[in-house]
Amino acid sequence: MKKNISVGLLGLGTVGSGVFQIIERHQEELVHQLGCGVNIKSILVRNLEKTRDVQVDSTYLTTNPEDVLNHPEIDVIIEVMGGIDETREYILKALEARKHVVTANKDLMALHGPELQNAANQYGCDLFYEASVAGGIPIVRGIEDGLVSDRIDKVMGIVNGTTNYILTKMDDEGVSYEDALKEAQELGFAEADPTADVGGLDAARKMAILARLAFSTSVDLGDVEVNGIADLALKDLQFGKQLGLTMKLIGFTHFQDNQVEVSVQPTFLSRNHPLAAVKNENNAVYVNGEAVGETMFYGPGAGGLPTATAVMSDVVVAIKNMLLDISGRSYLPPRFEKVLKTPDQRFSNYYFRLHVQDKTDTFTAISTIFNDLTISFERIIQIPEDEIVVVTHETTLEKVRNVLADLQKADVVKEVKSHFRIEGAVGE
Amino acid sequence: MKKNISVGLLGLGTVGSGVFQIIERHQEELVHQLGCGVNIKSILVRNLEKTRDVQVDSTYLTTNPEDVLNHPEIDVIIEVMGGIDETREYILKALEARKHVVTANKDLMALHGPELQNAANQYGCDLFYEASVAGGIPIVRGIEDGLVSDRIDKVMGIVNGTTNYILTKMDDEGVSYEDALKEAQELGFAEADPTADVGGLDAARKMAILARLAFSTSVDLGDVEVNGIADLALKDLQFGKQLGLTMKLIGFTHFQDNQVEVSVQPTFLSRNHPLAAVKNENNAVYVNGEAVGETMFYGPGAGGLPTATAVMSDVVVAIKNMLLDISGRSYLPPRFEKVLKTPDQRFSNYYFRLHVQDKTDTFTAISTIFNDLTISFERIIQIPEDEIVVVTHETTLEKVRNVLADLQKADVVKEVKSHFRIEGAVGE
Repeated sequence: MKKNISVGLLGLGTVGSGVFQIIERHQEELVHQLGCGVNIKSILVRNLEKTRDVQVDSTYLTTNPEDVLNHPEIDVIIEVMGGIDETREYILKALEARKHVVTANKDLMALHGPELQNAANQYGCDLFYEASVAGGIPIVRGIEDGLVSDRIDKVMGIVNGTTNYILTKMDDEGVSYEDALKEAQELGFAEADPTADVGGLDAARKMAILARLAFSTSVDLGDVEVNGIADLALKDLQFGKQLGLTMKLIGFTHFQDNQVEVSVQPTFLSRNHPLAAVKNENNAVYVNGEAVGETMFYGPGAGGLPTATAVMSDVVVAIKNMLLDISGRSYLPPRFEKVLKTPDQRFSNYYFRLHVQDKTDTFTAISTIFNDLTISFERIIQIPEDEIVVVTHETTLEKVRNVLADLQKADVVKEVKSHFRIEGAVGE
Repeated sequence: MKKNISVGLLGLGTVGSGVFQIIERHQEELVHQLGCGVNIKSILVRNLEKTRDVQVDSTYLTTNPEDVLNHPEIDVIIEVMGGIDETREYILKALEARKHVVTANKDLMALHGPELQNAANQYGCDLFYEASVAGGIPIVRGIEDGLVSDRIDKVMGIVNGTTNYILTKMDDEGVSYEDALKEAQELGFAEADPTADVGGLDAARKMAILARLAFSTSVDLGDVEVNGIADLALKDLQFGKQLGLTMKLIGFTHFQDNQVEVSVQPTFLSRNHPLAAVKNENNAVYVNGEAVGETMFYGPGAGGLPTATAVMSDVVVAIKNMLLDISGRSYLPPRFEKVLKTPDQRFSNYYFRLHVQDKTDTFTAISTIFNDLTISFERIIQIPEDEIVVVTHETTLEKVRNVLADLQKADVVKEVKSHFRIEGAVGE
């Protein structure tokens, strides 16, 4: 049998402990796959004395990054410490020292992915990041390998478990946003400071990574239009339900004529859309390919062991590539120059809820505002408390922005309460 | 740039035409992935004169298998002709001639997979079969690669589109089995002779392949317990619905203590189960791994282009392996000797519907029959027309068989109308 392969860990938190456990428990499977076992040689931690969930021989722990990054026997470095600037430096050092790197760090990959991937290519190393998007769901490899001969034109994801848990509670049980968030915090699905989750930034990071991968174009985090769920009114979810729509925080990216759009926003889904059935803290990524059609990958988006499983699937591929002497070829530079779609090229159906004057000509006045911008209705519904819900046929974001401006100026409209993209047909 | 790689096709039906189209249209993507293009050199057909969906230069067509199997320039042979005995011989010849083989043939892989995979290893060739299970869903690679460091203990699949279409119609619209089948036939989802689909055999073939792959044990088609949907009563679907259950034809395989069970049978799913939301002709495979937890892969289970996409993903890997000189190592022989679970080791909740005597002590008599076998109830419901529905807690298949025998002998029971496995909790 071949000599065991040695790996090093940067970090020993929830995911790191999961990786540690899998390597301990699954030696037999690893030997079966690789023809050799896997050893952990050194683990970078902040505090040597901390009590941990896993029993680790203290001689393996170190607070000096060099002990991992330049360990002569370590071939693969697993980065599960999080953070951005310091971590970026560590990974660059590791690559320079000709170590392959597996990372679960979405923040880092969203911001510095292309730079790190180029460095990996330059040093003939692999840099894998399956765990950085949607935890245990093998979506990176699913897009890379499974659909390799297809042209992907759309990726939609429920890629944040916290917000999906909150929206499920609101939609299924009529719980308010505040109460649902509190419950999510009590259950450990939401952080004490939930800003990055509920504001949509966490999902935006993952969507930037997915858009780059799916369309081979260099999307940056700043290209993602982001709206979170903190202002959502239960009322809209209830009207949506009556229209056969389910509210989800959807990461959306579309590629057409070499032009790309990426957004994260609360979106109404037709009840028949496969993503509409994804509940609680679960994640799912929907991929539409020209040839394959609609596919979806579903699973746990977070959690120590699920994320660690994704990390380990990368570790296995990195080791296989190393044993076969084919490392450093996994990253392909973008094929397409980035061109962002302009608002007149971004199409969707929309939902508006308006607080209006209770007058006989209100309906007509509002119809006229939409008609003047050639936005056609799917339906328009008067609801209690002087409100009107308008559902449009497909229109452009540009027209939506114009109609919002016109509605705000109109006498009959007291307030535009909300507006949302709709994905799929209403009332199905 | 490297020299183009030449491939040969066995068959030019729906899937073959899809492969032809993808290779024609996606040269750019193939070059990007492989560093070279892909040419089709020769295509085996039955009839040279037939009108086809794709425009093929007739000089590439042949009725002589040797023109493909022994073509000196062909490196990869794509088998999309279907059939078993003749096709098995062709594939063995192709491997012997050191050609890599990609097949979409579930019948062949279910019956002769291990033999063909061993032959591939022997000749240093790759034999891939992603398209043989669930069409465009990359489940074979999903299990092989994505979950490589995990222990999978359960795989459940909706792996037959025809039956899922029929059950969706019955469940959502209350259409009878006969009418739903007729509609599926009119839409082209069901064959004129639907026996293999509705009888469960098609799903059983796919489950034999998945069970082998997921558990690394040598399951044969004959090990799969098969029940189809031809006898399903609409009534059971309706009672199920009241209990929060959805009826699906589920391929089920479970591995525990190195013992395996595989079945295909109409099964009630808790409405919250991710598979319960899979509708119409779509397929999905649910995989439970010790570390990753619940994951699901969803997509089109059939169709020319989706299946061709899966074929092409295999072709790309086969060519990559060839270019990297690492072919012939993809198949790992089974790690576990096959031990099938005995009926006393197969656990599930169950649903029974009984036609009973309308007497005051019927309830008690039936309770006693179940109690005597230590099967405990989740609930027992009296329904119109002298029927009783019994939902049990977890029990063994052995006890279910015994209780069926006892019920059939009991005076108060006129007839056991139906019984089904239940997956997940009732009334959620």
